Amino acid sequence: MKRGFGSDNHSGVCAEVLEALKDVNELHAMAYGEDEYSEEVEKIFKQQFGADASAYFVFNGTGANVLCLDAMTRSHHAIVCADTAHIHVDECGAPQRIIGAKLLTVKTPDGKLTPELVKTQLHGFGFQHHSQPKVISIAQPTELGTLYTIDEIKQLASLAHQYDMYLHIDGARLANAAVALGCSFKEMITDAGVDALSFGGTKNGLMLGEAVVLINPKLNEDFLYRRKQAMQLCSKMRFIAAQFKVYFEKNLWKTNATHANKMAKMLYEKIKDIDGVEVVYSVDVNGVFVRLPREVWKALQNEYFFYDWDEDDNVVRFMCSFDTTESDIISFVDTLKKLLSDRK
Amino acid sequence: MKRGFGSDNHSGVCAEVLEALKDVNELHAMAYGEDEYSEEVEKIFKQQFGADASAYFVFNGTGANVLCLDAMTRSHHAIVCADTAHIHVDECGAPQRIIGAKLLTVKTPDGKLTPELVKTQLHGFGFQHHSQPKVISIAQPTELGTLYTIDEIKQLASLAHQYDMYLHIDGARLANAAVALGCSFKEMITDAGVDALSFGGTKNGLMLGEAVVLINPKLNEDFLYRRKQAMQLCSKMRFIAAQFKVYFEKNLWKTNATHANKMAKMLYEKIKDIDGVEVVYSVDVNGVFVRLPREVWKALQNEYFFYDWDEDDNVVRFMCSFDTTESDIISFVDTLKKLLSDRK
Amino acid sequence: MKRGFGSDNHSGVCAEVLEALKDVNELHAMAYGEDEYSEEVEKIFKQQFGADASAYFVFNGTGANVLCLDAMTRSHHAIVCADTAHIHVDECGAPQRIIGAKLLTVKTPDGKLTPELVKTQLHGFGFQHHSQPKVISIAQPTELGTLYTIDEIKQLASLAHQYDMYLHIDGARLANAAVALGCSFKEMITDAGVDALSFGGTKNGLMLGEAVVLINPKLNEDFLYRRKQAMQLCSKMRFIAAQFKVYFEKNLWKTNATHANKMAKMLYEKIKDIDGVEVVYSVDVNGVFVRLPREVWKALQNEYFFYDWDEDDNVVRFMCSFDTTESDIISFVDTLKKLLSDRK
Amino acid sequence: MKRGFGSDNHSGVCAEVLEALKDVNELHAMAYGEDEYSEEVEKIFKQQFGADASAYFVFNGTGANVLCLDAMTRSHHAIVCADTAHIHVDECGAPQRIIGAKLLTVKTPDGKLTPELVKTQLHGFGFQHHSQPKVISIAQPTELGTLYTIDEIKQLASLAHQYDMYLHIDGARLANAAVALGCSFKEMITDAGVDALSFGGTKNGLMLGEAVVLINPKLNEDFLYRRKQAMQLCSKMRFIAAQFKVYFEKNLWKTNATHANKMAKMLYEKIKDIDGVEVVYSVDVNGVFVRLPREVWKALQNEYFFYDWDEDDNVVRFMCSFDTTESDIISFVDTLKKLLSDRK
Repeated sequence: MKRGFGSDNHSGVCAEVLEALKDVNELHAMAYGEDEYSEEVEKIFKQQFGADASAYFVFNGTGANVLCLDAMTRSHHAIVCADTAHIHVDECGAPQRIIGAKLLTVKTPDGKLTPELVKTQLHGFGFQHHSQPKVISIAQPTELGTLYTIDEIKQLASLAHQYDMYLHIDGARLANAAVALGCSFKEMITDAGVDALSFGGTKNGLMLGEAVVLINPKLNEDFLYRRKQAMQLCSKMRFIAAQFKVYFEKNLWKTNATHANKMAKMLYEKIKDIDGVEVVYSVDVNGVFVRLPREVWKALQNEYFFYDWDEDDNVVRFMCSFDTTESDIISFVDTLKKLLSDRK
Repeated sequence: MKRGFGSDNHSGVCAEVLEALKDVNELHAMAYGEDEYSEEVEKIFKQQFGADASAYFVFNGTGANVLCLDAMTRSHHAIVCADTAHIHVDECGAPQRIIGAKLLTVKTPDGKLTPELVKTQLHGFGFQHHSQPKVISIAQPTELGTLYTIDEIKQLASLAHQYDMYLHIDGARLANAAVALGCSFKEMITDAGVDALSFGGTKNGLMLGEAVVLINPKLNEDFLYRRKQAMQLCSKMRFIAAQFKVYFEKNLWKTNATHANKMAKMLYEKIKDIDGVEVVYSVDVNGVFVRLPREVWKALQNEYFFYDWDEDDNVVRFMCSFDTTESDIISFVDTLKKLLSDRK
Repeated sequence: MKRGFGSDNHSGVCAEVLEALKDVNELHAMAYGEDEYSEEVEKIFKQQFGADASAYFVFNGTGANVLCLDAMTRSHHAIVCADTAHIHVDECGAPQRIIGAKLLTVKTPDGKLTPELVKTQLHGFGFQHHSQPKVISIAQPTELGTLYTIDEIKQLASLAHQYDMYLHIDGARLANAAVALGCSFKEMITDAGVDALSFGGTKNGLMLGEAVVLINPKLNEDFLYRRKQAMQLCSKMRFIAAQFKVYFEKNLWKTNATHANKMAKMLYEKIKDIDGVEVVYSVDVNGVFVRLPREVWKALQNEYFFYDWDEDDNVVRFMCSFDTTESDIISFVDTLKKLLSDRK
Repeated sequence: MKRGFGSDNHSGVCAEVLEALKDVNELHAMAYGEDEYSEEVEKIFKQQFGADASAYFVFNGTGANVLCLDAMTRSHHAIVCADTAHIHVDECGAPQRIIGAKLLTVKTPDGKLTPELVKTQLHGFGFQHHSQPKVISIAQPTELGTLYTIDEIKQLASLAHQYDMYLHIDGARLANAAVALGCSFKEMITDAGVDALSFGGTKNGLMLGEAVVLINPKLNEDFLYRRKQAMQLCSKMRFIAAQFKVYFEKNLWKTNATHANKMAKMLYEKIKDIDGVEVVYSVDVNGVFVRLPREVWKALQNEYFFYDWDEDDNVVRFMCSFDTTESDIISFVDTLKKLLSDRK
């Protein structure tokens, strides 16, 4: 299938990552994370997130999110999130089934929680009939391609801790956020007071594998059993570790995310002033959300696969990847322009 | 770490599998199993298991086992298995947590259930206080390296169906069983009346990825939602599909399993008559279970990693892999012999 | 504690109900619902709800609601309800924990769902990432004391069935609804197309015990096991059955609910025109929701226990019971008036 | 149905208990355990079990057992119990579904665990693939009518604590044990080192209602939410509290249990030497387990309802209740004798 703008997980794998898989494929290694590669990469995570942070590899983003939340809650707790949150909308109810806890959703203008929005759900503490709020969960960047500033994250962390709650970040695209903000992971996460992070790699050039990064040391207790029981323990773990090793050591996270963000910006620049095109959210990272005439986006889907984001509202999503090229964008914009002019 | 006899998942990945990953790494592909590679490999599974069979990729063996059982039960059901079953002993309670159902375990002499043993658990049908038996779950080969004949599988399938129950096979090492029995997968599984199969690849040369194979078409309903909710849906699925493609197309399953079985047989031949060594189970596939003097296996573990299987009983497990070499065995047996003679 | 307006479960038990407990307290009876009393009362339910209906006793309203939903869903399903629904707000997450399913909540002006409001949640059918909508759950009367007309119930049932979904009613106060609408239970429930009903008695003069009434016969499968496993099977069931027997045979449901509704109407009439008092929802049954000056309701709570319903909005709830007397209301209104005039 | 020997929950309710229900049925009371009666009875439990003990009312024995275990475990833990334990055999898998944890069962000669038997399951600590043993759960008296001495309980408590585990007692018939041992509840439970107790009343003359008694203060955290979420919170709680109040204040627990035990002893004395009758377990409390010729117990069931305990082994169970009379026993034994002599 030709390269398009459907999703950053439609892309393949960085050449360096494939190489890395080959490099660890020799002789034997202990399974289940007790190999030297895994242990080495866990150290790299400590360099990136601070000495108190612990990283645990899992298979996918759903696993990372659910296991972060599992480490912070029991079933009588509630998790406050945006009503556009991936954990609410796109995981087929995994948190409810695996943890048994409740999600309390909040409407937002741009996918971002604020202390004021969160506070609308912070009541009923100590009342036995009410699921007890225990986690604020946000995505950085959000599912709408918008970004929290570090200061906004700090405010949410501070609110959470004031109520004896935790702050979780779904960082499926955290690298894209870091390069956009020009900060280190540690500045954005650890120093901002985040307790647990789902750290994504698959959408930024890895083959598969994500990491649960527990910043708050209290959360480590029992985690190994919880991961295994939740079916997220990989046997030949070195092949996940190898990917993260090269991701950090060769700065793939930065190169890839910088490129994807740049491509999205280019796409944005090329379409923002076209008549009939309305960009609906700030283009902070690698996604561009656009309102288009219905017949146009329907016709465009004959040429390219992409998701309608809000079908009733004629909003669609274009995602750029680490492998998107300038000529991909030029062709895509040409097609879009043609369809727009055809309909007149 | 040097090659040893710790586990068949301590081995790396077949060269052909690494090549296959490279081959599908071009351009874009739909995620979540809607790519052409996944669809193609699903067809191969139909060739291997019959036209009614459906294959679904998952990440690991725990996922395959739990999702098979999930397709066959609700929480008020019970699953009859050997007390040595991986689903009972080695999955940290995943079936209980994810499905909520009960395991009813049976002691066996050799890891194999028989109709007589299963019947000891088949009571309380229709009694509201009793978890209703719904699945017989066996491993082929068993966790003790023993094999069911096709006829024995048929008898268990027939018993299950007579009680309106299902038969599940944990086939983490199914290829080793097939080559040992000299039969096709279809003969051993589909024609024998099995309802659902966990089909392993990781222990036989793949990097990661297993398949749930639902033979009984009734079990497909809702499976896609259940897999996603159980956090076993891979985004860049083509990289799991690619492994199974080459596994079948290049007959890796047969070559690798034949080799591993042959190595185990060689190891068995070389040690069976040594004084102080007692082989405790029939060596039907690629594992050799041995009773050794305590100080000897403890000393041997300083040289090689392997698992004590029953520490109190001084039984240990030696596993051969697709990459075990004859010289690995010769060195290993030499070391063992030396330790045995040292102690005298 | 003196009679007040805190909740209809602050009241005691009808004298007839206590008598009925005594009447069945002789000799022995089979346990777990196999006694003659339970069987007799199950027949009464069939008279009240139609021959296809089946009644199962449970301990409390949470149990009734969760078991109704459990009969209609698996964990990958979603249940659409108002964001004021008891199942969302007041059961400490029981549905999530016990069933694992997701609640999709909708904002409403008056606690009532409409087809239009429900449709905002009816999307993502067949999309494996999305919890599949399977139940519309409403309360009759609602938690805000408002009522659905029979026609409105029919419309929701029809919408549900059109999408292969079910309609559930939380009828913790169903008798109050029936007398207010002047209809039979059958007209309001069975004939309207409801699939499953939580039928309450505790809030209308019983000691404890509710009934799950499954109208749709498909839902009965496995129900006995599900009830037992969910810890809602009473051993000396005759003592729950006895209460429902007298509830129907002596028309307690009607007498008690008529009285409670009448008292609420009286309370409403006496306060609606008082300066400083604003009745915020239609008084359809036995609850009166009122906006009061903050210092007044705070002071009133020193004299009487009642719940603030929306503290930020200064809305409080006054509930009438089967045992509320006219003089209770007169005293209460006098106190309220005094507090209102004091503050001037 | 005439009084028989089917179960101690086939009996009705003590007259004093019915009176007590009437006594609290006046005016209003706070719901959900915040009433004065409940608070008063919680104090009585502290007198009976020591100042650190906390009592929480629940609806039934399943609820009490599951909530005790829930307070002591998370889903990755295991609970060691006899394979005859009620939590394993007779609760339709409630612990698995509600808690998600694993039961590890042990065969016993008489329903009683010993440190040696428990130790067979105490391995795999710290191994991520293995459900971590966290609770030893025993029944006092056992389901086979046998008793632990206080010293035996102490040994199990000591073993549990040595492994950082808890000791739970299923005390559905604890009063029968206490009168048989001639000790106080505190001596048998608190002083023996038990951590959590399911305290039964229903089988000894109450209408319905059991208590979770948490001796170990650490277990109280979050219990109120867990009870509510597990659907075991009664609204008109005073009607459960009232029963326990009279149970303790009028020594009903002692009178009733003493009588039931005495009746069982009488039954035992009258049948033990009859030819064809074999009493199979020690008659320590109110149950008599007997092996009978198959045609005899089948014929006896035409006259009296009772359970076959092990149908294949022709063992049946006769239970005595607080309301069993001497003439009930005489008639029953006469019938049994007649059937035995008829067959010759």
